[in-house]
Amino acid sequence: MEAVSSSSSWLNVLKQTERSAWFQGFIVTIIIVAALTVGAKTYNLPAPVELTINYLDKLITIFFLVELTLRFISCDNKRRFFHDAWNIFDTVIVVGSLLPISESDMILLARLLRVFRVLRLVSLIPDLRVLINALLKAIPKMGYIALLMFIIFYLFAAVGSIFFESVNEVLWGDIAISMLTLFRVATFEDWTDVMYETMAVYPLSWIYYVVFIFLTAFVFLNMMVGVVLDVMTQETSSQDEQSKQDQHQDLMDEIKTLQQQMQILSEQIAQQNRQKE
Amino acid sequence: MEAVSSSSSWLNVLKQTERSAWFQGFIVTIIIVAALTVGAKTYNLPAPVELTINYLDKLITIFFLVELTLRFISCDNKRRFFHDAWNIFDTVIVVGSLLPISESDMILLARLLRVFRVLRLVSLIPDLRVLINALLKAIPKMGYIALLMFIIFYLFAAVGSIFFESVNEVLWGDIAISMLTLFRVATFEDWTDVMYETMAVYPLSWIYYVVFIFLTAFVFLNMMVGVVLDVMTQETSSQDEQSKQDQHQDLMDEIKTLQQQMQILSEQIAQQNRQKE
Amino acid sequence: MEAVSSSSSWLNVLKQTERSAWFQGFIVTIIIVAALTVGAKTYNLPAPVELTINYLDKLITIFFLVELTLRFISCDNKRRFFHDAWNIFDTVIVVGSLLPISESDMILLARLLRVFRVLRLVSLIPDLRVLINALLKAIPKMGYIALLMFIIFYLFAAVGSIFFESVNEVLWGDIAISMLTLFRVATFEDWTDVMYETMAVYPLSWIYYVVFIFLTAFVFLNMMVGVVLDVMTQETSSQDEQSKQDQHQDLMDEIKTLQQQMQILSEQIAQQNRQKE
Amino acid sequence: MEAVSSSSSWLNVLKQTERSAWFQGFIVTIIIVAALTVGAKTYNLPAPVELTINYLDKLITIFFLVELTLRFISCDNKRRFFHDAWNIFDTVIVVGSLLPISESDMILLARLLRVFRVLRLVSLIPDLRVLINALLKAIPKMGYIALLMFIIFYLFAAVGSIFFESVNEVLWGDIAISMLTLFRVATFEDWTDVMYETMAVYPLSWIYYVVFIFLTAFVFLNMMVGVVLDVMTQETSSQDEQSKQDQHQDLMDEIKTLQQQMQILSEQIAQQNRQKE
Repeated sequence: MEAVSSSSSWLNVLKQTERSAWFQGFIVTIIIVAALTVGAKTYNLPAPVELTINYLDKLITIFFLVELTLRFISCDNKRRFFHDAWNIFDTVIVVGSLLPISESDMILLARLLRVFRVLRLVSLIPDLRVLINALLKAIPKMGYIALLMFIIFYLFAAVGSIFFESVNEVLWGDIAISMLTLFRVATFEDWTDVMYETMAVYPLSWIYYVVFIFLTAFVFLNMMVGVVLDVMTQETSSQDEQSKQDQHQDLMDEIKTLQQQMQILSEQIAQQNRQKE
Repeated sequence: MEAVSSSSSWLNVLKQTERSAWFQGFIVTIIIVAALTVGAKTYNLPAPVELTINYLDKLITIFFLVELTLRFISCDNKRRFFHDAWNIFDTVIVVGSLLPISESDMILLARLLRVFRVLRLVSLIPDLRVLINALLKAIPKMGYIALLMFIIFYLFAAVGSIFFESVNEVLWGDIAISMLTLFRVATFEDWTDVMYETMAVYPLSWIYYVVFIFLTAFVFLNMMVGVVLDVMTQETSSQDEQSKQDQHQDLMDEIKTLQQQMQILSEQIAQQNRQKE
Repeated sequence: MEAVSSSSSWLNVLKQTERSAWFQGFIVTIIIVAALTVGAKTYNLPAPVELTINYLDKLITIFFLVELTLRFISCDNKRRFFHDAWNIFDTVIVVGSLLPISESDMILLARLLRVFRVLRLVSLIPDLRVLINALLKAIPKMGYIALLMFIIFYLFAAVGSIFFESVNEVLWGDIAISMLTLFRVATFEDWTDVMYETMAVYPLSWIYYVVFIFLTAFVFLNMMVGVVLDVMTQETSSQDEQSKQDQHQDLMDEIKTLQQQMQILSEQIAQQNRQKE
Repeated sequence: MEAVSSSSSWLNVLKQTERSAWFQGFIVTIIIVAALTVGAKTYNLPAPVELTINYLDKLITIFFLVELTLRFISCDNKRRFFHDAWNIFDTVIVVGSLLPISESDMILLARLLRVFRVLRLVSLIPDLRVLINALLKAIPKMGYIALLMFIIFYLFAAVGSIFFESVNEVLWGDIAISMLTLFRVATFEDWTDVMYETMAVYPLSWIYYVVFIFLTAFVFLNMMVGVVLDVMTQETSSQDEQSKQDQHQDLMDEIKTLQQQMQILSEQIAQQNRQKE
């Protein structure tokens, strides 16, 4: 029994440590150091500095492993730990940077995995987590309008690669590369160069581009309006409506009280009448 | 009579089939396959794959014809079938891809007609249909501001082609090509190249471009604000106003009830007074 | 007296003519024809067509003069005629196209004046006039933020021409040309070309561009938000508030009625008490 | 005592002078002249004009010093003078332009300090001050979303410089230059040039650019929506809510009055009943 008690008290210490402000601050500092080493590695550094960074790198990897293990141990319900998407996210990043990739041709991947450790900043700062959750929630609202956008791109890309493939195979060779070209046109990036080239063969092809730009701009504008409206309706309906409902309820309560008073009065008078008879 | 009954029961089966989820899913699958063949054809494929796709193409054409015929037959009122714009849209696409265009110089058109079959995705998925209807409804609101935009473009194009035709005939040759050049300027696409060219002859011509950009940006901004406002007013007035009206009605009803109780009370007391006299 | 009567009846006929739908439609048609001749003149036309257009042009000029004269005559108060900005606008355009500019070096100006006749479309279609009035009203709201924007441009242009004049005199020669270059940067038009050029001399000059872009984008964003808000507040406050006030008044009236009933009741009971004593 | 009185009356005259409309107008005029001399210096001017401007410059410097001194003297509480950020701002600008920088290699800095005097326009016009304060207030709202944006840029820059450094060292040499390149891509400035270059080595690198553009555009869009919403909620909640609260209070007061009347009535009737017993 003593063993259990000491173990649970040890867990409590762990949990308190994990939640304490200084521990959170310490981890944020470590991640920022990790981010800086990622950045530093893109510069040509003198050998001793590079070596120091490599040691620092290994230290950070070990620290992250320890931190995640402690977090896992201090979790009451081991199963629920992996129900939280953020915990899975952390585990993948930590395990990813542990993989023993040392062959020379895999060095890019190894460096890439180390870069993604910066993302732990997002999973660690609560406000950023809330922000990301809010952004992710906004995506499904855009669902059908994104599908419509894709259909427009697909259609124009198909038409474009049928007509313009003979003009410039690099830009209009197949439907995938045509969609990329159209994405470029949609961002207005040197779109007139693309147009003037095809206008040399098909003089009326400017219609294709102008219609495409109007269509995408129009659909995009509507998407924006939709998202703004959606967020606004939610915000106002949740806050504003509540206060309005409260005020309405207050009024109704007061009037109900009046009606009850009236009822009592009415009964008193009825009693008077009965007494007289 | 039995023939009629069997015919109508056969119609009911048809209608139920048409509305069933698996049949809708099946058609969506066919259209996606059709869309993929459209995309696949833009690649250089080995001969046997190309042949398979051609057969698939004919199958899809036949399937679409059958599906439309069945839908037409299962429709109660044959005339109302063509009152629905979406049915006309489907018919045009299906009939279009049936046209016997096999001459070599018409091959582009034939491929084009097949591309438009992808649009049936829009007419088939109800949510997309609703979205398109909503987008179409937003167009008339932009009517007069679009006319104003056109007048601005026309005026600046006329002025531009009067002054700058001598500078660069490719960009300012006539009013149509000038409007295209101005559309390019409005999308900020290498507009300084156009400007520096005319500034070499008319040093003050930057005023023309800056005024044009401000004007179009300003009118466009107002158009956007207008559309946002319009949609918002509609949304809020229909939803919010209803709940407000309901609350107001509730309050009025309760107060009316109070007044009636008061009336009864008043009459009771009046009766008392009369009894005493 | 008869003369006066016949004169006034003649005026009435004029006024009715002017306001009639077919006359308005006729003038719109004339202006559209005038606009088309403006556009047609930018093309190289065969001699007889050009001649026809020149005659048409003179006819339109005469027609516009007659129309304006009739409008002036049919106006009751001759002074108030020129209090309306739209009338002044029309007069300037009509008189402008009458000026006898026939010298060869003035031909550009003559053509320019004819172009501006298209603007009469705006002054003639009431909905367009309302739209323009609304747009003009939106300008003062932007006043101080436009001044701030100008100060930002002026400051950065001054700094830019101090440092970068030695790099590229065409882009940074004096403060006016620097402001044009900054306007180009603000529209993102090949701004990196400008930046890479100065970065060759001042490696840290990217800070200048990034700060400028953030500053203008931030101020512009706030201007947009401001305009949207302003329009919205006006719209909602006028419509929504009215209905809310009405509902509130209804409720207050009903409660006042209740209080009066209560007063009467109270007096009746007081009377009873007095009778008993 | 007389000295004090004369001194305080002298202070009052100073304060009145400082607040008077003509004095404010006079200072604004001086600043505009100062701004114009800043602009004029960027042109190649004839020697006498340059000399005049230099004398004007010294006069303005002295005037600004006198104005600030007078303002400081007329301030009641000397300590509170430097609690106002705008006063510190003015002092820094005035003292800055007083620094005796005359060595030839410091001439750029001296000219720079003189340019910043234009900023006094902002600190002097009250409406501009209010505007700036409003803009500064909008920044913290963007805090976390700006951090998220920075993380996205940092991550993509790290990935970019790992993979693309071998392709083009000028654009992807280290993490700082990669972030600048990504900022260029985010503004759509010749981003396809950057992409086509890396696609020659990594054919799938278009995914990197498209994902980056979507991500930044999406986050930016949400930031905009957030700011609009935030400003709107503040505006409406302060104005609208107040009037709503007032109306609600009115109603509650009237109903409370009714309940009191009811109470009195009830007591009167209870008294009747007691009298009878």
